[in-house]
Amino acid sequence: MSELHLLSPFGFRAAGVYAGLKTKQKADVGLLLGETPCDAAALFTSNTVFAAPVKIGREHVRGGALRGIVVNSGNANACTGRQGEKDARRMCELAAKVAECAPEEILPSSTGIIGHQLPMAKVERGIVEAGAFLGNSLEHAHLFADAIMTTDTKRKVAGVEFKIGRRKVVLAGIAKGAGMIGPRLGPPQATMLSYLTTDAQVPAALLRKLLFHAADASFNCVTIDDHASTNDTVCILASGASGARVGRGREAQTFGAALDDVCQALAFQIAADGEGATKVIHVVVDKAKTEAAARAIARAIANSPLVKCAMHGNDPNWGRIVSAAGYAGVDFNPDKCTLIVEGTPLFAKGQPLHFDAHLVSQSLKSVEVRVHLTCNTGKAQAAIWTCDLSKDYVTINADYHT
Amino acid sequence: MSELHLLSPFGFRAAGVYAGLKTKQKADVGLLLGETPCDAAALFTSNTVFAAPVKIGREHVRGGALRGIVVNSGNANACTGRQGEKDARRMCELAAKVAECAPEEILPSSTGIIGHQLPMAKVERGIVEAGAFLGNSLEHAHLFADAIMTTDTKRKVAGVEFKIGRRKVVLAGIAKGAGMIGPRLGPPQATMLSYLTTDAQVPAALLRKLLFHAADASFNCVTIDDHASTNDTVCILASGASGARVGRGREAQTFGAALDDVCQALAFQIAADGEGATKVIHVVVDKAKTEAAARAIARAIANSPLVKCAMHGNDPNWGRIVSAAGYAGVDFNPDKCTLIVEGTPLFAKGQPLHFDAHLVSQSLKSVEVRVHLTCNTGKAQAAIWTCDLSKDYVTINADYHT
Repeated sequence: MSELHLLSPFGFRAAGVYAGLKTKQKADVGLLLGETPCDAAALFTSNTVFAAPVKIGREHVRGGALRGIVVNSGNANACTGRQGEKDARRMCELAAKVAECAPEEILPSSTGIIGHQLPMAKVERGIVEAGAFLGNSLEHAHLFADAIMTTDTKRKVAGVEFKIGRRKVVLAGIAKGAGMIGPRLGPPQATMLSYLTTDAQVPAALLRKLLFHAADASFNCVTIDDHASTNDTVCILASGASGARVGRGREAQTFGAALDDVCQALAFQIAADGEGATKVIHVVVDKAKTEAAARAIARAIANSPLVKCAMHGNDPNWGRIVSAAGYAGVDFNPDKCTLIVEGTPLFAKGQPLHFDAHLVSQSLKSVEVRVHLTCNTGKAQAAIWTCDLSKDYVTINADYHT
Repeated sequence: MSELHLLSPFGFRAAGVYAGLKTKQKADVGLLLGETPCDAAALFTSNTVFAAPVKIGREHVRGGALRGIVVNSGNANACTGRQGEKDARRMCELAAKVAECAPEEILPSSTGIIGHQLPMAKVERGIVEAGAFLGNSLEHAHLFADAIMTTDTKRKVAGVEFKIGRRKVVLAGIAKGAGMIGPRLGPPQATMLSYLTTDAQVPAALLRKLLFHAADASFNCVTIDDHASTNDTVCILASGASGARVGRGREAQTFGAALDDVCQALAFQIAADGEGATKVIHVVVDKAKTEAAARAIARAIANSPLVKCAMHGNDPNWGRIVSAAGYAGVDFNPDKCTLIVEGTPLFAKGQPLHFDAHLVSQSLKSVEVRVHLTCNTGKAQAAIWTCDLSKDYVTINADYHT
């Protein structure tokens, strides 16, 4: 996947510039535009406190068509009242001027500190400047990806190439994560910022359905700190520039599978780059009564600070894992379950198992640790990605504001 | 309250001895016995993974009478299968021998690491030794309180004296907390270890009702890491030795109010001594639609690692507080709410307010910080105590096991 980037699909241009919103001198205003109108779908946070750009974005994507995305980092434009909405609309207007389209064809996004009005003079200059630097090279893709990052230490990029009928199609995406990452399950929604491009032509209704399916099995399965953000947005633009048209049936399946892959690759990168993270924890719960139960158990384990600290310390303290399953609020019987951590069975059917604590501790010194809990009460399964909890998480978040 | 201790009420003796279960050379086996049979009530964890002593304790307290409590720290006797149950029963047998009562009159408790069999030779020696050192002095109360502590840095003690009719009555209690503290709401249950004594005579059914009411408004309102333990137990013993009998009506109200006070004093001490804590955060949510909604919002705020880190860094990052309210899963409208932190209004009716960030940051450098969110959608209220999240929490929990 490594060679493909957000601008590999035909029909897109992007730019990212430094407008002075972030303290770090890295791109903080970005533009991503289709050369022609695109079929589009988007999912947003389910938080009842949602940012101005989420409100405007919901309106603009409703018709299933967009020309592009305008984004800033360093300021979330959330809890900013009417001025915030006015500013989000103004961002769309300026981007629309560049794209020569209607402001309603632009989806706005913001990420950063909550509760501060956007410094609009800087933002406006940034959008105009970005409009003058549009291109479709790898560097352009990198700069746009930089423009959505906050405490992320790495760009999160994924892409695949596949065929629809006889035509080659590319699907690519970027994401940001790091902190305030705790998606909520339920009706269509999503988490963090992620933008996806494809040069396939996909009808908007189908695109929306496939995007929700993909996001629910990827972004909605990541938790860093279980704090659902006010700004979470996932948006896909389909330019159709490859000439390949995705119909219902097998083509939709092929495209959907590719979308699942790209979203999962991005979700994994978000977990791996969680604030202060030194490793990814992959919690798999299977043979549960229902998928909802499996997910609740996996999420309880993944969100336990005690489990996350134990993982940080390479400590095979499995009691914390089993007890977290016990308070998930769903059916769970410790007398039936089996717990395997990085390949070593630690607990089975209500009984602790003998194991070499030193060896298991060594096995936890991995960049990806697998926690596998088998409930033996049904047939459903779920998986959640999270990361460990380190002192760096505290450092990053104890003085983010000032 | 400071002068009264667990053995201030007439009719009780206790002891605590070091039996070698904890690495720190501090009491780790304790006995608390009534001189005569006591009316008793107890509440236990709602975790579906519960420890052997919780199972046995539930059986023994069912009849509403107990003679005493036997406890150890350093090992939770949880996830230990049939051997664990046998060991918990054996602890009761030995304590019963000391008290000259039936084993079914003893409530067992354990706290510490999950998944290790109890070192019964040490535990047995400890119980016998404790039996030889029983007394009712302040020192005896201290040693028993030490015997329930794990990562606690302070004993948690509270007591009140009041009158039932013309008779003086004493009610006192101790508790332990520190880590794995995250009570679950719902039907009768409770959290962490807490033992209460009184020399009033209170019928068991009334005692149970009053204990649940008191625990639900105190222990159930504390969260350190939201990880409901396998061993949480609150137990009250009423010796009747004062000669005062608590009937229904006004006497029950008087006694219940005293019980509420003692439990809240203990709950506050648990929050203040949370693992790595430097301050207590008192989250008050009022004018909510329902009490359940108020509690869900308060709990979401109190459990957000981002909020807890901001508090640790004296950072008035109020966006984290409002956004946590937004994902609590209940009705919440940011356009109606008001947020006041340590007396300073920061956000009202969807709009950020101007405030002096430096002054507010100074005000957060307090041992108790009040976060007050008014929803303006109803009349219900709730409060939750928690503590900040520091690097010391990570240190304590990253290598607890090994």
